[in-house]
Formats: sequence, C-alpha cells, structure tokens
Amino acid sequence: MIDVSTLGPILDPAPYRALTHLPGAHWIDVIDQRALPHERVDVRIDNVADAARAIREMWVRGAPLIGAVGAYGLAMALDDDPGDAALARAFATLDATRPTAVNLRWALTRVRNRVAPLPDNTRARHAWDEADRIAAEDIEINRAIGEHGLVLLRDIARRKGVVNVMTHCNAGALATIAFGTATAPIFLAQAEGIAINVLVSETRPRLQGANLTAWEMRERGIPHAVFADGAGASLMRRGDVDIVLVGADRVTRNGDVCNKIGTYAKALAAHDNGVPFLVALPSPTLDTTLASGDDVPIETRDDGEVLGVAGRNERGIGERVTIAPAGTRAINPAFDVTPARLVTGLITERGVIDASEEALRQAFAERF
Amino acid sequence: MIDVSTLGPILDPAPYRALTHLPGAHWIDVIDQRALPHERVDVRIDNVADAARAIREMWVRGAPLIGAVGAYGLAMALDDDPGDAALARAFATLDATRPTAVNLRWALTRVRNRVAPLPDNTRARHAWDEADRIAAEDIEINRAIGEHGLVLLRDIARRKGVVNVMTHCNAGALATIAFGTATAPIFLAQAEGIAINVLVSETRPRLQGANLTAWEMRERGIPHAVFADGAGASLMRRGDVDIVLVGADRVTRNGDVCNKIGTYAKALAAHDNGVPFLVALPSPTLDTTLASGDDVPIETRDDGEVLGVAGRNERGIGERVTIAPAGTRAINPAFDVTPARLVTGLITERGVIDASEEALRQAFAERF
Repeated sequence: MIDVSTLGPILDPAPYRALTHLPGAHWIDVIDQRALPHERVDVRIDNVADAARAIREMWVRGAPLIGAVGAYGLAMALDDDPGDAALARAFATLDATRPTAVNLRWALTRVRNRVAPLPDNTRARHAWDEADRIAAEDIEINRAIGEHGLVLLRDIARRKGVVNVMTHCNAGALATIAFGTATAPIFLAQAEGIAINVLVSETRPRLQGANLTAWEMRERGIPHAVFADGAGASLMRRGDVDIVLVGADRVTRNGDVCNKIGTYAKALAAHDNGVPFLVALPSPTLDTTLASGDDVPIETRDDGEVLGVAGRNERGIGERVTIAPAGTRAINPAFDVTPARLVTGLITERGVIDASEEALRQAFAERF
Repeated sequence: MIDVSTLGPILDPAPYRALTHLPGAHWIDVIDQRALPHERVDVRIDNVADAARAIREMWVRGAPLIGAVGAYGLAMALDDDPGDAALARAFATLDATRPTAVNLRWALTRVRNRVAPLPDNTRARHAWDEADRIAAEDIEINRAIGEHGLVLLRDIARRKGVVNVMTHCNAGALATIAFGTATAPIFLAQAEGIAINVLVSETRPRLQGANLTAWEMRERGIPHAVFADGAGASLMRRGDVDIVLVGADRVTRNGDVCNKIGTYAKALAAHDNGVPFLVALPSPTLDTTLASGDDVPIETRDDGEVLGVAGRNERGIGERVTIAPAGTRAINPAFDVTPARLVTGLITERGVIDASEEALRQAFAERF
C-alpha cells in the first residue's frame, strides 16, 4: 500500500466534502446525500449509533466513503468505551449496516486489528489515526488515478480544444473522501484550465447521475448536461463524445468490469463508434479471487426503484411518483458486467493499463 | 395499397381501442392517453375543433392514430359545412396541429382529394367512408405484420417453450387503430396460446414503455415486467431475451431505422449477444426519398422531459417531480438511428425481409 508518511498536500479544490475530519476532533462532518441535489444538508456525527445509522439509511454511499465512515464510527465507540467487549459490539453493529459492502468490512477489520493489541487507554487515539490513514490513502489513490487519466484528457484537449467526457452513475467525490475515481481526471483537468464538458447519464433507476454527478459538476462550475440513459449510444454516434469515463464496483482478474447497470450498453456504443472507454480502478476494487465477470453475483433490487421516481414537486416538496400501472412487476438488476474486450483501458493509481489478466498481474503482482 | 373490399373480419380481441368509429356514427371515441396508465379516460369527439385539440394536446399519439383522427376530423367538419372554404379551413386547422407528423398530412390529403371533386351534399358521407378506409387499412397492415412476426415467435416457442420478447417505447395498439405494429405478433401469439413474456423498456424520458406498453399488456393479461433502459443490454447478456421487437418512425431506403431514442443501444446489445432484433415496418413508414439514416433530421425536445418525471404521487394525484439541480441543462434527442447492419429483419405487411435496399426494393418495387 501507499506509505502515508510521504503523502504530499491533498489539493481537491472542492466547495464540498463528502466527509471531513478536523485534526483532533472527536466527530466527523458528512453530507446527508439523500437530500441532494435539491438541498445540501450537513450532518455532524459524534457517536457510533449515528455512524451506523448514516451508513444503513444511506446518508452516505459509495464504497470508499462507507468504509471510512465505518472506521471513524469504530473510533467513536472506543472514545466511549475502549474495552474488548465494546470493540466487538461496535464492530458488529457497523458491519451489519450494509452486509455486502466489501470496503466496510475491510476498513473495520483494519482498525480493529490495529487497536486490539494495544492497551485500552491508547486504543481510541490509534483508531482515529487509522481511520485518518484510510481516508488519506483513498484520496491519494484517487489523485493518482486523476493524474494518469489527466494525460488522456490533455491529449484530447490538444487535438480538439474542448474535451467532451461521458460519465455514468456517480463515481465522484461524493462516493469517496475526495476527487472521486472516474471524476478525478476531470477535476484535475479543470484545475489546469482544460475546457471540459461533461455529459451526465441520469442512471435510472436511482438517478445517481442526475442527482449527484450533476450536483458535483454544478458545485465546481464544470459545464455539463444530463441525458436519458437510452440516448448515450446516439450521442456517441453523432460525435458528441470524446471519451467515456466510468467507475467500477468490482474488476475481476481477467479485466471484466462490474459496475452500475447501464455501463455495458455504453461500452458497446463506445466500441461501435471508436470512442475510448476508460474505467477508473482503485486497486482495492480489483478482485483477484474471481476469474471473470461471469462469477460476479449480480444484486437484484426492489421493483419499486424502477416503478417509481423520487424528486421534488413544483412546490419544492420531496415526492415519489409511480410511473406504471398499479401491480406491475419490474426487473431490476443493480449492476452489469462489461467484458474486458470492450474496455479501452483501466486507469489505476499505478498507471493506465490494458483490461487483461496479463496487464493486471504486471501492475499488481502482489495481489495475484 | 390493399383492396379494402376484400378485408376479412378484423380480430384484435383487445379490451380497449385507441379509436372506435361505430357504423353510421357522426363521432369517434378515443382514449385520452395522457391519463394512462393510472386512469382510463374515454372521450367522445364529434366536432373538428375537438379533433384538432385531441391531436395538438396529445390525447392521442402514434403516427397511424393521429392520421386517422385527422381524417375523421375532416369528416366532422364537412358534416357542419361541406363547402370548399370550410373544407380548406378544416384541413389547415388539423394540419397545423402536429406539423411534423407525416401520416397526418397524408391522411388529410387523401380525404380531401377523395371529396373535393364531389357535390357538396355527398362530401361528408364520402369523407367518413374514406376515414373508415384509412383506419381499416391500418388494421389490415398491422394484422399482416402480426402474422409474419408470429411465424418467428412460433419457432421460438417450439424450441424454448416460453417466448421472452423485449420491446421499446410503445409501438402498440394505442399508437394505431388496432394490433399495433411491433405488438401485433405478440397479440396474435397470445391468441393462439403461445406462452409469452414481455420485457418492457421504460423508455425515458417520456416513459411510453412504463406508461403505455405496460398498460396494454396488463389489459390483455400478458405477463410482463418493466426495466430501466440501461438494463436492456444486461438482460440480453444473461439470456433473458429471445427476440427484440421494436417499431419505427422512419426507415430509409438502405434499411436504416429511425426510432425512439434508446433503440440503437438495444440493437447493439442484441447484436453482441446473438439475439434477433426485428423491426416492425408498415409500408407507410418506409421513406424511399432518404438514402440513409444519416439524412434523417433528429428532433431535439425540451430539456424538461429529461429533468423531470410525471407520475402519480402516494395520494394518487398527478404530479411532476424534478430530478436534477435547478438550472441544469439536458440533451434530449427524441430519436436515434439504428444502422441496417444491426437489424436482423424488417417485419412488413408483405413478409419478413432483410434490412437492405435490395430487399426493400424487391418487396416494395412501386415505391422505388
């Protein structure tokens, strides 16, 4: 992993942070993302029960962010009671909030393993430090992804002036501690004055694109426009897109990409139109235990997500509307698999590499 | 064209009709489709002003249906005043309701040309007859498309038991006088007892799939499920789809298909997964004046369609909710072009043919 003692200054000039921990503070500040994009609600969390609730009720989402909130939550628990029983209890509480979130279990385990051998009176302090380290590493990985992706955007800017980037879902700063993954190259490009235009796929059914990515672009002053998912292929065909940048929920050892539903269709369209299709891959998202995307279990979510849409009505009130006849069934796979053959490259913290076992093995030898 | 004197009994056993004209009646009954799927509102139209309003305000939509309503509207005008001035006035009023609707202009012209040479006192009667003929021809074309498509569905049923059909938008009976175009094979398959399951693409931004196609399947008791547009490719990849059946807004002489936005992405996914991708093409939709899909002007619609969603709230009240930050821009192309190379076949009233100029020329020689 990264040696955090060598971390330089972290410069994501965002007017918002999904999570902030001030030095020495015994609390964290997060954005309650359920109110976005209509309203920004900041919440201070200073006890393990609220940390668990924030994860369970999806005030926060995005694997890296959930992991960090869990880690800080464990530190809060140890502030109250550093004993073995309390540690085990807090671990179990936090771990149960999102049972399928790999990053959460990983972050909790890391904090527990760090503090368990220590005397009670130093445990809390070391837990806060370890949570800080988890957060700092996330930022550093994303910044490295941003710099490697930036090389690609610079090249397009040199040739075409403006860079038109298509995104899907939200692999943004709101899903991480800073920079985001797929958004990191965009934010660094903006910082060095590259003219950039972001085409935001709304990402039905949960609308993370329209709700979250559009909000991030707006907050940062980056020109952008939202489109219905079905229009993505057509926008590529008519030449409106220079590059597609997406995140990943899991990348298997052969380079197949499991990501939010709708990603595969975009990869097909990019391939058909010669548009580069790049996947931001922080190394914790690489799953070398699975041979290919066929082995990834795909979560099927509630019908209601498809049959209804949440937003604000004309009076500014949060409202959920149904769009199909009462009693209609839905099919709602949450993720899909994009075969490696459709992926132009993986942007990792160690550089842009081919989506292949060979390239992954070369870049991340210690994981194979 | 079809010799309507030879038309057999028309058997679409639907519990609803987008348009009904009883023999001898001086009115038509239509469904106000704006209230679907939440409510079925039947409206009687007996004067040209209401006919024009029904088209302009989109109580009715779908090219064949709009054309027929226009034709009947002209007959209603002639009931009141069969003179040349009134005829010209009614034509202009109806023609102005949806300026880009090719079928509307065609149907109005046909009625006008039929009655203009006749003495005033017989014009209205002949106008009603001509409108009936336009409606009957639409049904007959769709039934023929249904029978040719049925052969494909029978073949799948024989091999697999259940036939899983994916649709897009609404090319259903609600867009026509009966049967629909892409739905005609499905309805005939149901009538002969084939087990069929319809996967309904919700079709953002206007949700014609979730609103209209789901309603039609429900009314007819055909098993179905709605999915978010972005999930279509994944459903094909995992083997849930035996055939894709879509309609068309325009097919150019080389076989390129202009249809509702999102069609091209489905064709790409079908191609990548070896799923047959069939387009229902009634011959009036064939445009031999355009060489290829590149020549089709693509309408860009209002941003608000993408940035908001209409439905019913928890209290059953119609409501529109916004899903993006205030002031966000959108990109909203209404149609896309699917290149002929991705189309397995065109289901026409004269049989299933290749999507190529050669095959179209052979089937519809009189149009070239």
